[in-house]
Amino acid sequence: MALDDTRKPREFKVVGTRPDRPDGIDKVTGRARFGADMVLPGMLTGRILRSPHAHARIVRIDTSRAEALSGVKAVVTRADFGDVPEDVADVLDNCMAGDKAMYDGHAVAAVAASSPAVARKALKLIEVEYEVLPHVTDVDAATRPDAPVLHEGRQQETVPAGMSANVIARSEFGHGDIEAGLKQADRVVERTYRTAATHQGYIEPHACLATMGSDGRADLWVCTQGHYMVRNTCAAILGMEQGQLRVTASEIGGGFGGKTVVFLEPVALMLAGKAGRPVKMVMSRSEVLRATGPTSSTSIDVRIGMTKDGKITAGFAELRYQGGAYPGSPVDMGAMSGFAPYDLENVKTVGWDVVTNRPKAAAYRAPGAPMAAYAIESAIDEAARGFGLDPLEVRLMNGADEGTRASYGPTYPAIGLKATLEAAKSHPHWSAPLGKNQGRGVACGFWFNFGGDTCVSLNITPDGTVTVSEGNPDIGGSRASMTMMAAEELGIPYDQVRTIIADTGSLGQNEVTDGSRVTFAVGLATIKAAEAAKKEMCRRAAMVWGIDEEAVEWEDGAARPAGPNAGKFPPMTLKEIAAIASNTGGPIAGHHEVNAEGAGVSFATHMVDVELDRDTGSTKILRYTVFQDAGKAVHPSYVEGQFQGGAVQGIGWALNEEYIYGEDGILQNAGFLDYRIPVASDLPMIDTVILEIPNPGHPYGVRGVGETSIVPPLAAIANAVSAAAGVRMTQLPMSPPRVLAAVQAKAEG
Amino acid sequence: MALDDTRKPREFKVVGTRPDRPDGIDKVTGRARFGADMVLPGMLTGRILRSPHAHARIVRIDTSRAEALSGVKAVVTRADFGDVPEDVADVLDNCMAGDKAMYDGHAVAAVAASSPAVARKALKLIEVEYEVLPHVTDVDAATRPDAPVLHEGRQQETVPAGMSANVIARSEFGHGDIEAGLKQADRVVERTYRTAATHQGYIEPHACLATMGSDGRADLWVCTQGHYMVRNTCAAILGMEQGQLRVTASEIGGGFGGKTVVFLEPVALMLAGKAGRPVKMVMSRSEVLRATGPTSSTSIDVRIGMTKDGKITAGFAELRYQGGAYPGSPVDMGAMSGFAPYDLENVKTVGWDVVTNRPKAAAYRAPGAPMAAYAIESAIDEAARGFGLDPLEVRLMNGADEGTRASYGPTYPAIGLKATLEAAKSHPHWSAPLGKNQGRGVACGFWFNFGGDTCVSLNITPDGTVTVSEGNPDIGGSRASMTMMAAEELGIPYDQVRTIIADTGSLGQNEVTDGSRVTFAVGLATIKAAEAAKKEMCRRAAMVWGIDEEAVEWEDGAARPAGPNAGKFPPMTLKEIAAIASNTGGPIAGHHEVNAEGAGVSFATHMVDVELDRDTGSTKILRYTVFQDAGKAVHPSYVEGQFQGGAVQGIGWALNEEYIYGEDGILQNAGFLDYRIPVASDLPMIDTVILEIPNPGHPYGVRGVGETSIVPPLAAIANAVSAAAGVRMTQLPMSPPRVLAAVQAKAEG
Repeated sequence: MALDDTRKPREFKVVGTRPDRPDGIDKVTGRARFGADMVLPGMLTGRILRSPHAHARIVRIDTSRAEALSGVKAVVTRADFGDVPEDVADVLDNCMAGDKAMYDGHAVAAVAASSPAVARKALKLIEVEYEVLPHVTDVDAATRPDAPVLHEGRQQETVPAGMSANVIARSEFGHGDIEAGLKQADRVVERTYRTAATHQGYIEPHACLATMGSDGRADLWVCTQGHYMVRNTCAAILGMEQGQLRVTASEIGGGFGGKTVVFLEPVALMLAGKAGRPVKMVMSRSEVLRATGPTSSTSIDVRIGMTKDGKITAGFAELRYQGGAYPGSPVDMGAMSGFAPYDLENVKTVGWDVVTNRPKAAAYRAPGAPMAAYAIESAIDEAARGFGLDPLEVRLMNGADEGTRASYGPTYPAIGLKATLEAAKSHPHWSAPLGKNQGRGVACGFWFNFGGDTCVSLNITPDGTVTVSEGNPDIGGSRASMTMMAAEELGIPYDQVRTIIADTGSLGQNEVTDGSRVTFAVGLATIKAAEAAKKEMCRRAAMVWGIDEEAVEWEDGAARPAGPNAGKFPPMTLKEIAAIASNTGGPIAGHHEVNAEGAGVSFATHMVDVELDRDTGSTKILRYTVFQDAGKAVHPSYVEGQFQGGAVQGIGWALNEEYIYGEDGILQNAGFLDYRIPVASDLPMIDTVILEIPNPGHPYGVRGVGETSIVPPLAAIANAVSAAAGVRMTQLPMSPPRVLAAVQAKAEG
Repeated sequence: MALDDTRKPREFKVVGTRPDRPDGIDKVTGRARFGADMVLPGMLTGRILRSPHAHARIVRIDTSRAEALSGVKAVVTRADFGDVPEDVADVLDNCMAGDKAMYDGHAVAAVAASSPAVARKALKLIEVEYEVLPHVTDVDAATRPDAPVLHEGRQQETVPAGMSANVIARSEFGHGDIEAGLKQADRVVERTYRTAATHQGYIEPHACLATMGSDGRADLWVCTQGHYMVRNTCAAILGMEQGQLRVTASEIGGGFGGKTVVFLEPVALMLAGKAGRPVKMVMSRSEVLRATGPTSSTSIDVRIGMTKDGKITAGFAELRYQGGAYPGSPVDMGAMSGFAPYDLENVKTVGWDVVTNRPKAAAYRAPGAPMAAYAIESAIDEAARGFGLDPLEVRLMNGADEGTRASYGPTYPAIGLKATLEAAKSHPHWSAPLGKNQGRGVACGFWFNFGGDTCVSLNITPDGTVTVSEGNPDIGGSRASMTMMAAEELGIPYDQVRTIIADTGSLGQNEVTDGSRVTFAVGLATIKAAEAAKKEMCRRAAMVWGIDEEAVEWEDGAARPAGPNAGKFPPMTLKEIAAIASNTGGPIAGHHEVNAEGAGVSFATHMVDVELDRDTGSTKILRYTVFQDAGKAVHPSYVEGQFQGGAVQGIGWALNEEYIYGEDGILQNAGFLDYRIPVASDLPMIDTVILEIPNPGHPYGVRGVGETSIVPPLAAIANAVSAAAGVRMTQLPMSPPRVLAAVQAKAEG
């Protein structure tokens, strides 16, 4: 465990331990309430009619037969929604098609009915007349000047004239002179890499339950990563005031970025308003795959120049990401992050945001970064291996450190990249022998953390236990980490604190649970709220003691007279102060509202051993070790879980997962039988090494850990497979047919 | 409308108007979720087995046959509960009998089963062996030395030796010399009055839904007037920490004090813990009447001395209230409040708290006061009429005012008693002619308001609407009044604010919704929270303008540069500041936690005309006018509703409602067919006159209004019936048989 020795780490009592998870019993006993688990009297079933075409003009929708069906209480089409603010226009379009259906599975109408059977029947009675249009689903095909055009007039000025109207925007990062740098190189690796669209694969489909009164007040129960986002987005789409829509987040069965946007929610509210009854909507798995947001498929050109001793003289990448039917692929974040682990004199990335006839992409764990890392780390690996250099040494030599000018602009404070590389180098995994048909790969990954609007309230109960109220759905253990940070700061045991996720009526605005922001930002606010409560408790103790409140300190769960008063009175514990709260002014609380700044960046190095079956092309993951900087690991078991989970999702992305569209633009594999995510039997135990380089922007040094772990695996596995196969794999997934073809081509070639 | 002209009233824009109620649409469309409206997956039905005996030792309970029944998931008896803290021992005993069943309907066991049918069957399979004991249900009978004794060792030292052990405590208020005062009188009225036990008659029976994990974390959905009370009480009974039990209050279909205690809740939690499944419990009406808390039946001796010109020279009352099977009748509050409307030199009340074999009494709107007022106001009426004096003039002559030493000790600040009497005197009702068999009665009533622990959070959404989060179930319009006070203080429209009732995990400790405290105390905290938010918004504006934050004022919904900066910048509205909140530091909120002090006292005068049917003894309410001081009527329609509701409950209490116990100690009328509450066709429209004498302890002058209105009706109606019948009615209810008997006795006598 490397610690930044220039900063004396704080000594923790609760933080860094591994208490039982607060949601554990609930989840294993079925007590946890997920999106579909809410029931209201008089509730209706909402269902969505979806386009069977990849691209089609909606000439006419006749809902009259459906409306006439007994048991149908409301039918909604786009005509029910009015004009909406520009910033939510695409969101609404994606939730309910306007003039055109833009992809297979695009919502075109919805019903609310007294039973699922009636709802299904009603969908069949809705007549939609389509004018089928040419479509395009491939990112490179969509950029061709003659490609079918999805939107007119959306192309930004940054895009040069003459490109397809499907190329919406260009982004660029870098500094130095690429051509000059390449000239200094002893070898230039230049390749194009392709990745397939993958889905976040959360186990729980989208679900919500909406009510909407004729008074304009609405309530929504929903599975989401951000119920404030749901509130604000739905309020904008429905023309409501945010304060009149109260949204409660259910327990969440996985999100990984895919639940940071709305799909069903505005439709459910509209149906509920028309029906005058609560409406529950739950997606099927097929709907999740066809019509929620996977990540982009990509096509990436890379040029890397390297000297024979391993110095990278130039790094260039051009990235094309399709974001589905609407602008907004994460190509900018791919372009930002790909070279971020390195200290380069000449570096440049150019990103192109492309639309295709696919569902609008949503965030997926470090959005955009894994594909860029795959391409760039593959090229670096190829260059290093070309010189017979140690790929870890090459990365150490070129690695970014405190003071490095990052490829995307800023200068790094203390960061942990080299610590992860050093840890990898000295780990037994690195020196373990490999067998026949086996290969080892390494890769680095970078991700940054968000901060953003955050509110926490902390209340002391009369018996001296503590409730913490935060506004971010717990997707990775935040109830545990907030409980721990509150307990740490207050100096009380973990089990005397309970953290809950408040609804939007109970707490102020909170950004979505994304950007690995929660442990950092909500943790910061929790600590500040605890500080406020401690200050108030010191004031109460001072009142009882009859001394100045400045002369009281909080230590070890108790107020203590300090300075000239030290020792004059026995300490008053939190429980003692809580017991007299009512008689000393009233309940004691601490609150904190902040747009959190100071989020850190985070680096990881992954190492993986694979074995190829040369007869089938299938790849087995033999061993996998994650080395990542957590800043400070609040609850190491959850941190390890995040490391392992990112690696596993990366394994699926690298080896098997892909959206397969037919020539007809229809998704061919909209189910978990055909869209294959890794299962336990596919995987070894993922080993983890937690590094702790404190984030100077957080009182406990916390960095987000949830996303970085998915950045290196694609590249690490590709490097391992390429080593084992003896051929560079430039397309994901490296599914058995593709590996077999590569191996056979090499054998034949 | 009389206003205290020594204080310039604040000019209000929102407060004092009559906007639509925020819960109106929800309640008329069925969207409001009451106690029984929550559903959880895997939920069980909980049912309670109740004692068929008024008083019986529980020799043995055999639950084995019930436990063996298929579908039964848990059976609970008192043996499942451990030792509990002394302050909740009676509460637990009342929820689940210990060694003895204390009254007809007392819970002795409970089951949780997969369906109501299985639960019912399981109850029949529980074998209870009882040793039936002698019982007593009448308050006077219970005080006799030879009465069956309910508890040994509970009598307090204030009770003289030799009294029955059923007399638990004595309370006393007053000053001066009663005997000396009586000597100065020209007439002494000395009578004994009796009132029957009545139930609050809330339409919604008690209901809750509990979950309890093996990790000790529990959640409870419950219909209650105080979910923090439920939390703290259940936590104490179950040995939990308060912070680990999260309680959410449902919408409430009436409470009137009867939902300020727990009945089902600890049992539901215990069943849920044993079953490992959610358990819902809903009482039947019969259970509500047999086993929840009605108010006391009472027996009250009064002596009033009056001079021939109407001066009251002495007032004495001895009050005996039975509080059911456990100590704690509201006799102390009866003794405190009975003479409180008057400025008396010689006044004394003595209260006796008596136990009987009836369900433990709960609070009922101004607990204890209506019976005391009935007795004392009847005696004053009789004395005044005896001299042919105007009963309003007599009350004005003796009425309390600012500076009066109250009969219960303190000196009054500005109060509104005389304003209500003056308003009554000048009201057309007072001078309207009466017909044959008709009578008119007046009476005064006093009630005090509570303050207590209160927390409010107010959050500004990004679009500049406002959410207010309070912790008191809304039994009388508090969401409307908090919304109005927040809007008033912030200077924004009513419909830009939404107030919700937060659960115990989201907000700090709040006292129960009782003691007419909410509009006062939660209103105070709401105003203070709004002030805190305004201060923060001024700070943000100052930041934008680059001026000192002290130089910014909030007026009319906007921050404005003030003092030397006045007019330098255009005002920034709340919406404008909300829009930049994220960029100026983060979300904006205001919070306030307080043990509220400064609650006012409240007075009312009621005037009623009745007509007797001399053939049947039935009484018809012809006309009814309430004159009451509201301090400041935040939402006058709700205030009028409270005035009317109190009068109507008083009408029921006066004329019809009573618990009828047989010789066997069994309740004879446990249903709304036999326990007759007034229905719309029994009633005229209740007229109301709102007086506004500001409470100096509240920024807007607010006083609680919910309880005072039930204090005078018993006496006012008794005075009217007595006038019409020509015979003094000294027992309630004045049901047709009783009135017929009195009229016939007079005719015969």
